[in-house]
Amino acid sequence: MAATAVGPGRSTSSYSEVQHNRLIVSLPLPSVLKKPFSVIDGPPSSAAGNPGEIAKLFPNLFGQPSVSLLPGHTSGAALDHTLKIGVVLSGGQAPGGHNVISGIFDYLQEKTKNSTLYGFKGGPAGIMNCKYVELTTDFVYPYRNQGGFDMICSGRDKIESDEQFNQAAETAKKLDLDGIVVIGGDDSNTNACLLAENFRGKGLKTRVIGCPKTIDGDLKSKEVPTSFGFDTACKIYAEMIGNVMIDARSTGKYYHFVRLMGRAASHITLECALQTHPNITIIGEEVAAQKQTLKSVTDYIVGVICKRAKLGYNYGVILIPEGLIDFIPEVQQLIAELNEILAHDVIDEAGSWKKKLRSQSHDLFELLPQAIQEQLLLERDPHGNVQVAKIETEKMLIQMVEAELESKRKEGSYTEQFKGQSHFFGYEGRCGLPSNFDSNYCYALGYGAGALLQSGKTGLISSVGNLKAPVEDWTVGGTALTSLMDVERRHGKFKPVIKKAMVELAGAPFKKFASLREEWALKNRYFSPGPLQFVGPTSNETNHTLMLELGAKA
Amino acid sequence: MAATAVGPGRSTSSYSEVQHNRLIVSLPLPSVLKKPFSVIDGPPSSAAGNPGEIAKLFPNLFGQPSVSLLPGHTSGAALDHTLKIGVVLSGGQAPGGHNVISGIFDYLQEKTKNSTLYGFKGGPAGIMNCKYVELTTDFVYPYRNQGGFDMICSGRDKIESDEQFNQAAETAKKLDLDGIVVIGGDDSNTNACLLAENFRGKGLKTRVIGCPKTIDGDLKSKEVPTSFGFDTACKIYAEMIGNVMIDARSTGKYYHFVRLMGRAASHITLECALQTHPNITIIGEEVAAQKQTLKSVTDYIVGVICKRAKLGYNYGVILIPEGLIDFIPEVQQLIAELNEILAHDVIDEAGSWKKKLRSQSHDLFELLPQAIQEQLLLERDPHGNVQVAKIETEKMLIQMVEAELESKRKEGSYTEQFKGQSHFFGYEGRCGLPSNFDSNYCYALGYGAGALLQSGKTGLISSVGNLKAPVEDWTVGGTALTSLMDVERRHGKFKPVIKKAMVELAGAPFKKFASLREEWALKNRYFSPGPLQFVGPTSNETNHTLMLELGAKA
Repeated sequence: MAATAVGPGRSTSSYSEVQHNRLIVSLPLPSVLKKPFSVIDGPPSSAAGNPGEIAKLFPNLFGQPSVSLLPGHTSGAALDHTLKIGVVLSGGQAPGGHNVISGIFDYLQEKTKNSTLYGFKGGPAGIMNCKYVELTTDFVYPYRNQGGFDMICSGRDKIESDEQFNQAAETAKKLDLDGIVVIGGDDSNTNACLLAENFRGKGLKTRVIGCPKTIDGDLKSKEVPTSFGFDTACKIYAEMIGNVMIDARSTGKYYHFVRLMGRAASHITLECALQTHPNITIIGEEVAAQKQTLKSVTDYIVGVICKRAKLGYNYGVILIPEGLIDFIPEVQQLIAELNEILAHDVIDEAGSWKKKLRSQSHDLFELLPQAIQEQLLLERDPHGNVQVAKIETEKMLIQMVEAELESKRKEGSYTEQFKGQSHFFGYEGRCGLPSNFDSNYCYALGYGAGALLQSGKTGLISSVGNLKAPVEDWTVGGTALTSLMDVERRHGKFKPVIKKAMVELAGAPFKKFASLREEWALKNRYFSPGPLQFVGPTSNETNHTLMLELGAKA
Repeated sequence: MAATAVGPGRSTSSYSEVQHNRLIVSLPLPSVLKKPFSVIDGPPSSAAGNPGEIAKLFPNLFGQPSVSLLPGHTSGAALDHTLKIGVVLSGGQAPGGHNVISGIFDYLQEKTKNSTLYGFKGGPAGIMNCKYVELTTDFVYPYRNQGGFDMICSGRDKIESDEQFNQAAETAKKLDLDGIVVIGGDDSNTNACLLAENFRGKGLKTRVIGCPKTIDGDLKSKEVPTSFGFDTACKIYAEMIGNVMIDARSTGKYYHFVRLMGRAASHITLECALQTHPNITIIGEEVAAQKQTLKSVTDYIVGVICKRAKLGYNYGVILIPEGLIDFIPEVQQLIAELNEILAHDVIDEAGSWKKKLRSQSHDLFELLPQAIQEQLLLERDPHGNVQVAKIETEKMLIQMVEAELESKRKEGSYTEQFKGQSHFFGYEGRCGLPSNFDSNYCYALGYGAGALLQSGKTGLISSVGNLKAPVEDWTVGGTALTSLMDVERRHGKFKPVIKKAMVELAGAPFKKFASLREEWALKNRYFSPGPLQFVGPTSNETNHTLMLELGAKA
């Protein structure tokens, strides 16, 4: 199949001033990338867990070293000829994706001759169907420092069956590809490694390099300190939370319940809390560790509301991670039982079906607001399962808090008015203009990925480190993807996975939050960052989570 | 009652860099305010409608001239002595309110000696209860160019009964007030005028001056070209709409339905459309003028979606004004009937109560998604009425569009996937950092209000004009509030009202939108302004609505 048009691409003639200004900002590179460098192998690597199983799953790649770029002339191993490289965006958008592509493109332009960069359209399906666009200077330029993934678009397909691997191999051969860069999250990078392994096993010359992307911030390790997009998304959410805080303080009558994107891990919620100092923040990982119930979460919120009422504050801001209910064991149990009942029984109006619920699940179901009960029973996915993702957790909590405060009112222990306002901040954050940090980080990731490919490496994830330092001192290298892997047993088989990095309750970001939350709860320490700015002293600062993880002083 | 603490006020030590940077930005004044000026009366005024009734309602104020500030020495009428002034914020927050207060404060500091400015706490109730704080340089300074109303907070109480007027008069006498500035929307300015009339009638020396505030943009006239806050709120919403547009284009699979704050008029929705070029924009005033039904609005959206599907676009962005259903006559009729039925009848499960609905209302009720039906029946306000404001119009429309597309799918005329994503952009916009325009406009409004009070005027609304020009050429004056008024008959009595300025279908902003919307519908002309910036060439530009109304070339 020939190159497919992706439409004319963006035209800068429809750009706003801010977009124009971002376009012409030059992108600094780590100094190691600006002069001749060598790609130096580290020691042999192992796996994050179950190395024996990982070795079996990746016979060609397991144990290969991670690499660092160090100053000095490139060693002989490099591919000196013209390169043909493909790039693909996989999964949800994250600010900075376009800069990764720009980085790869510029690397090829500057360090190789007559090389070609193909952009696979619409995610991994584009590889399998050989749908691509040849990226040219004019085509790529308008996307520099711009948000979104629309240069080549993304998709959620996976290359995992033998047939799919063969399709991908066909494309690699047809386009004579020296390499593919997969920009994606934990799943996509696992798939990138499987593709690298498969191509190597087939004796193809095509190498595969990954890049860490996800606004959720849950793809990270010692070698890959952060995934791109997290920084920008949190800053956009923090702007809005900061505004809502000023609203809360000005009206003096609303509790704003803000649900934040991030289903698996609560990094976004934690980072936004560190940026804005809300009165209450629920961290899913803590809820799970303490085996909290929906009732205990509600009671915690109600407790703070009552204490604030005594201080004369009948307003506040509460942050809730999108994935909260996935962290509550009793809710998981209820949903499992509901799925079973819904599959086999009739839901009668009289409610006799409820007798099939275990006692704890029955109590929980009765505790839920009516609207949520109905949602659980009525809205199901194509497999007939309850759609947990559709539950608007913030609204559910508002209703549960309302009910609890109402019963306190009857006891006489709460006498104020409670008004909850719900918010969901999600889509507006994942396609914003990338922050200075994400712009620079992504450009270095892409440029570094180009260097890894030219040096003949495969099965690595582009790794840029020393992020506490100025950009010129950042380190560049590649981490063996197998070294990040463990296995999970699914359907009786071991599947390789890059474990999601969850919020560590012993980690510096959570500990800082935990040390301050009582003060934030009762005293109003609201912090309003304002809209993302691209100039000024702090515009180059990154996020609290990363800095604290890197050992910055609080 | 003595001055009440409003807490310590804000401390800049908890300010973000952006807040700090805004704080130290100097505020330019129109040149007429920088040199000696005279306050010159215009011709006698009339009323916007029913001048006879307005004359009866405002015997002391009706017919008084509007005034202009012109260069030259102040005439003898000015109050040369020390002034005691009160200021109050009334109604919902709007970015810039703090700058109005800063403007009044600076006027008193710079043009009068030893004057005092009291801030009434929590809105008009603060006047009635004599709850205030004395505003000092240190107290006021941290709020310059900052969002929110938390300097003195706001409230929605009204001063309207004889007793309430007497309470207000008591406060005016107790504090020996020369004047009060009421910062508010159409209702609050109507009340300001009634207070001015009442004080004049009682022979009090206390003058009352209004200032035009509302993010909704529906308080405006020839003399008062815009209300403050509209500019900033629209820019904040436009940032997020622009991000969501990039998301739509990147994923290629979502229709984002964005509901925007603004219950009465659709100015915000229209302005955001002009700023971002969405595929579909619903303007309430047009829906009303064309006597559209919910079905015809749905059909319009479905029509565009189907046309876009044929072009290969299965995504888009749709803007909806918060107040949409208030504009649809059949919905109003249904709600009136429901309120009647709910007050007197039992809602039986079998649905026989529905027979009491008129045929058109019955059909409409059956057309509504189940969740909306339930919301209409279950959620009522303290008076037992259906809570129209709680209906999430964007979700209702998604469900109606889904149902209609499903029936088209059965006919075979639509074969794509439709995924709607709902958004409500509201609270995060009304407390943001004021844009350069709102910062400057508000400061001039406040400074001008100080001048009007010193010249002994009452019953005027501070009016700053010539806004197309640079700040130094802006005009300053006061418009007779009675000249903006008409009457409405309520409970058999004439009530004075400043009519809300609705979107004019013959006005330049709507006409520009109407001339472009077909292109925006099918071609993707998305425009992403990015986050509000405070430096750069266009950071001083105001909004499209105002510029078009002032006759700027498109």
